Amino acid sequence: LKVVALAGGTGSAKLLRGLDKLRIDLTVVANVGDNVWMYGLYVCPDIDIACYTLAGVADRARGWGIQGDSHRSLEQLAKLGTPTWFKLGDMDMATCLFRTRLLREGATLTQATRSICSALGVSRNVIPVTDDPVETRIVTPQGDMHLQEFWVRDGGRPSVTRVWYRGARGAMVTEEVKAALEGADRVVLCPANPVTSIGPMLAVPGFRTGLAGCEAKVVALSPMVGTSPFSGPAGKLMKAVGIRADSLGVAKLYSGFLDSLIISDGDVSLKEDIASLGIDCSLADTRMTAASDELRLAKKVLKA
Amino acid sequence: LKVVALAGGTGSAKLLRGLDKLRIDLTVVANVGDNVWMYGLYVCPDIDIACYTLAGVADRARGWGIQGDSHRSLEQLAKLGTPTWFKLGDMDMATCLFRTRLLREGATLTQATRSICSALGVSRNVIPVTDDPVETRIVTPQGDMHLQEFWVRDGGRPSVTRVWYRGARGAMVTEEVKAALEGADRVVLCPANPVTSIGPMLAVPGFRTGLAGCEAKVVALSPMVGTSPFSGPAGKLMKAVGIRADSLGVAKLYSGFLDSLIISDGDVSLKEDIASLGIDCSLADTRMTAASDELRLAKKVLKA
Repeated sequence: LKVVALAGGTGSAKLLRGLDKLRIDLTVVANVGDNVWMYGLYVCPDIDIACYTLAGVADRARGWGIQGDSHRSLEQLAKLGTPTWFKLGDMDMATCLFRTRLLREGATLTQATRSICSALGVSRNVIPVTDDPVETRIVTPQGDMHLQEFWVRDGGRPSVTRVWYRGARGAMVTEEVKAALEGADRVVLCPANPVTSIGPMLAVPGFRTGLAGCEAKVVALSPMVGTSPFSGPAGKLMKAVGIRADSLGVAKLYSGFLDSLIISDGDVSLKEDIASLGIDCSLADTRMTAASDELRLAKKVLKA
Repeated sequence: LKVVALAGGTGSAKLLRGLDKLRIDLTVVANVGDNVWMYGLYVCPDIDIACYTLAGVADRARGWGIQGDSHRSLEQLAKLGTPTWFKLGDMDMATCLFRTRLLREGATLTQATRSICSALGVSRNVIPVTDDPVETRIVTPQGDMHLQEFWVRDGGRPSVTRVWYRGARGAMVTEEVKAALEGADRVVLCPANPVTSIGPMLAVPGFRTGLAGCEAKVVALSPMVGTSPFSGPAGKLMKAVGIRADSLGVAKLYSGFLDSLIISDGDVSLKEDIASLGIDCSLADTRMTAASDELRLAKKVLKA
């Protein structure tokens, strides 16, 4: 079974860990909207968490970075007067150094990611949705800021008046992504922030129509339980862009290409409204606290 | 007393530590010939060892880097398939990240070095001899290579047919260096490799004449004991460029601007030949094994 998984950060990594245990041909299409130049390095949090997860080295408790990593470089950067609100471990920094050098030498982000996966022993295919820079920007009364500034530096506290994707209009879906979608039997949207993880992908011209036009069944595992996401600022940002902050909001955002949505047992009241959008809706315990949950839900998204 | 110290690496750092204990106005002019792009970062070993030494954080036993540093990033880079023969600690890497970012943002090497010193609490003035890239190149039968490739990667083993300083001809001595030489009461050449530490400085147009023309007395502490340097590849490289590999060779290389040379007690037989070059020559126990040696020799170079 050829499966393409669209992945963002922490929540997505959990489902990826489950999918990775199955005998499937898995390609991960990673979000690039949270990529950021930091400390002179090109940091790709969503690509890296996917690679680290599939390499078995991800810091599971923290939800990002490499297990057992230290922060000596960052502490020294702080001593040198650099603001270090964006945490990056020493080993994690090596990934970013490696990628930044490859990019400066002319590699595409797809090629650099392939090199990282290969070096980390990841047999699954991890590809960014685009090789062009796309940046999730959060407009607040304090100014227009990068998603990382909003979420990590400012703790998600500023009011949000608008969200946009810098560079998206001129970006192109890569040939690798097109081929993956065309050859897929199943497309899985991992539980991810619809605005900052899936949103940047959908903003790249051709990606939404690629999803709508592909022969594969497109299934999503909702990141929402009631009006709260598993993690991250999904609720606040969904409201800011005028979407209901619940699984019905997710369904509306994905309607047009989504065939099936798995929502939390507790959100049974939304089932009818979701079905009325032409989306097959099923219920599950969508929390992933243990490895067994990850595997259970991975199996469920493939059967949905 | 305004003292300008010309400094290379490990040996120079010892004399700098002694000079730093004295009530003098000290400016360190650092070699740039061993600077190298490594892991996508601009590494300046001689500038950094001067800064770390004056900040009191240098790894004294090893002769480079920061005391207590770890190598997590480097180990991870190795896992990613990067050749990691050039050792760089995690904290040391932070310095390089910081500098590389400043340079990419348009700072000169002088400005970046000032920022690093200021952040590390170094009150002494550390300045590179030039803001232009100058690179010590070693020509061997295996090819023309960077000094670091010759010395660190290949362990100084290849035969050497020629040494040259890439970029030197078009480089310019900075205004800061000119002003330091003009205002100096004493110029001290720290014990340093004449070919790879002092040589690149002398190759920058105007620096040698600046030394010859300045009002300050110019004093050097020889890096040689007999035909061996305290550390590093000085002997082999001096022979390769056609200089005697001893303190007389050093004297000949510096004649024209050097007023006084302090050599090892054991080299008393060279004294007359050195004096015949018009250089005042004095003897000392030039080994610096303890802090007391560093202080003793620092006092001696100022009195020479």
